[in-house]
Amino acid sequence: MNAHQDPLPSWNERPTKDAIIQFVRAVTTEGGAEYVPPAERIAVFDNDGTLWSEMPIVQLAFVVDRVKELVAEHPEWRTTQPFQAVLEDDQQALAAAGLEGLAALAAATHTGMTSEEFDGIVRAWFAAARHPRFDRRYTELVFQPKVELLAHLRANGFKTYIVSGGGIEFMRAIAEEIYGIPPEQVIGSSGKTRYELRDGVPVLVRLPELDFYNDGDGKPRAIQKFIGRRPIAAFGNSDGDQQMLQWAAAGAGRRLMLLVDHTDADREYAYRILPSGLGRLETALAEAQQREWLVVDMKVDWNRIFPLQNTWS
Amino acid sequence: MNAHQDPLPSWNERPTKDAIIQFVRAVTTEGGAEYVPPAERIAVFDNDGTLWSEMPIVQLAFVVDRVKELVAEHPEWRTTQPFQAVLEDDQQALAAAGLEGLAALAAATHTGMTSEEFDGIVRAWFAAARHPRFDRRYTELVFQPKVELLAHLRANGFKTYIVSGGGIEFMRAIAEEIYGIPPEQVIGSSGKTRYELRDGVPVLVRLPELDFYNDGDGKPRAIQKFIGRRPIAAFGNSDGDQQMLQWAAAGAGRRLMLLVDHTDADREYAYRILPSGLGRLETALAEAQQREWLVVDMKVDWNRIFPLQNTWS
Repeated sequence: MNAHQDPLPSWNERPTKDAIIQFVRAVTTEGGAEYVPPAERIAVFDNDGTLWSEMPIVQLAFVVDRVKELVAEHPEWRTTQPFQAVLEDDQQALAAAGLEGLAALAAATHTGMTSEEFDGIVRAWFAAARHPRFDRRYTELVFQPKVELLAHLRANGFKTYIVSGGGIEFMRAIAEEIYGIPPEQVIGSSGKTRYELRDGVPVLVRLPELDFYNDGDGKPRAIQKFIGRRPIAAFGNSDGDQQMLQWAAAGAGRRLMLLVDHTDADREYAYRILPSGLGRLETALAEAQQREWLVVDMKVDWNRIFPLQNTWS
Repeated sequence: MNAHQDPLPSWNERPTKDAIIQFVRAVTTEGGAEYVPPAERIAVFDNDGTLWSEMPIVQLAFVVDRVKELVAEHPEWRTTQPFQAVLEDDQQALAAAGLEGLAALAAATHTGMTSEEFDGIVRAWFAAARHPRFDRRYTELVFQPKVELLAHLRANGFKTYIVSGGGIEFMRAIAEEIYGIPPEQVIGSSGKTRYELRDGVPVLVRLPELDFYNDGDGKPRAIQKFIGRRPIAAFGNSDGDQQMLQWAAAGAGRRLMLLVDHTDADREYAYRILPSGLGRLETALAEAQQREWLVVDMKVDWNRIFPLQNTWS
């Protein structure tokens, strides 16, 4: 395969890459036994740890920065959990606060404003925030092999979706720029909203009430609700993606299921459990091995991880 | 305009048609002051009474037929409201049962099966059911002028969405066939689902619990959740569409808002309030008149209502 024709140059010539190329060829070959019409070429991608680095989880970094900014208006946070844990970078206290603590943090930093105001806050944060280890914008810490894969799928008539536990509006603020995925193809966790006329102008106010938590079995349920078709390809990196891959796998015809195993401590990170406890790769990996789903060994399969990493000084 | 070039032949040459044609031209003229990039050309359509006839509401006709079929397994329904009202065609008792009664009917007829089983039930019903007055399949009772409008918008780079109070899976079963609208562009009311492995095969079971009622201010909230962009064109026919049109109208740049006024008792129906009380055109019409949104006078604006009506014997 020469470089001019290779749609996946950041993938090493290994069975994982071959399997992807073969899958795309099989479902797009007209007249072939495994042909799938374009309308049914739906591919779903988890985001954190699948399309970009989740060390730290980017939205949590946003929450931390927002808490530090908003504490001026909320001095009581200095002595109230889980805010105190965030302000003092106390990972143990934060983990102890659990999902309830996260919900309180999300409510304090993600709600009370209109949808448009929130979008502006998120965009401003992405323009300024830097990753603690790599000292790069978070938008530069997408996985280049996945960006190539998204483009390769779209060039072959696929509709590519994000199906993530992350906040739907948080991701929409940058998904088009970094992945070429438009807002209507981003599915995530969401809060309730209230429609209001302010001086005759309608706004949607973000409320501190969870609408949907898009993880685990929530993913196939969200896929059915938002898309209404079963994907033929699904990509994840944790047990929270397992049901999504099961759901995609269970349809008729050729399918592609893939998990990313983070094995590269030098160029990214090597882990199967997030320090926050918010994600792990264990049961999904066991099912992948049993059912011969693809598993990316990051260190071996990818010759480049971040788009411009080889130019970093 | 000669017939070969006219994208809207079922629309009479009147200001309503002119305004639609001008709008599409304005937002698609590159370099023009009102140009809108294709990605932002989002058009949203209510379904019942806007894209097809709602006399009767098609999904209610489905419910009635399902209750009559399922009563064999539920003899107690013969003496229990709201089922008795359905079985005895008692409109008064049905109206008295209200939204709570409808929820009970929906739970009894729309839940308990998997998403795939429900899709099969709906498709089978559409293949067999006939409209009581026109003696045609319900899929033949779409508004031809709207079908032309959908095609005209799509030919000009628009993405067309249904945003309806109807059940999302009910509509998806036929929206592609009758409107060319794929499942992922159908937004509607939904129930909760449960993900289950049955002998290792994943299914989504439809539960008798409302997830989202997509009417009134629910429409802009659903648009934000499902699409994440503000539409530039919105089409409705009742007060339940008013907030959706307000939301579309409030964006920057050129916009198109349109309501259908049902004025043709001969070819369709003349009404502004549904007999069931489930819909009316009153406050939305007042706002349309005040803000110069377009109003289709069905009798005057449309030279054809249903696709094959002129061939019916």
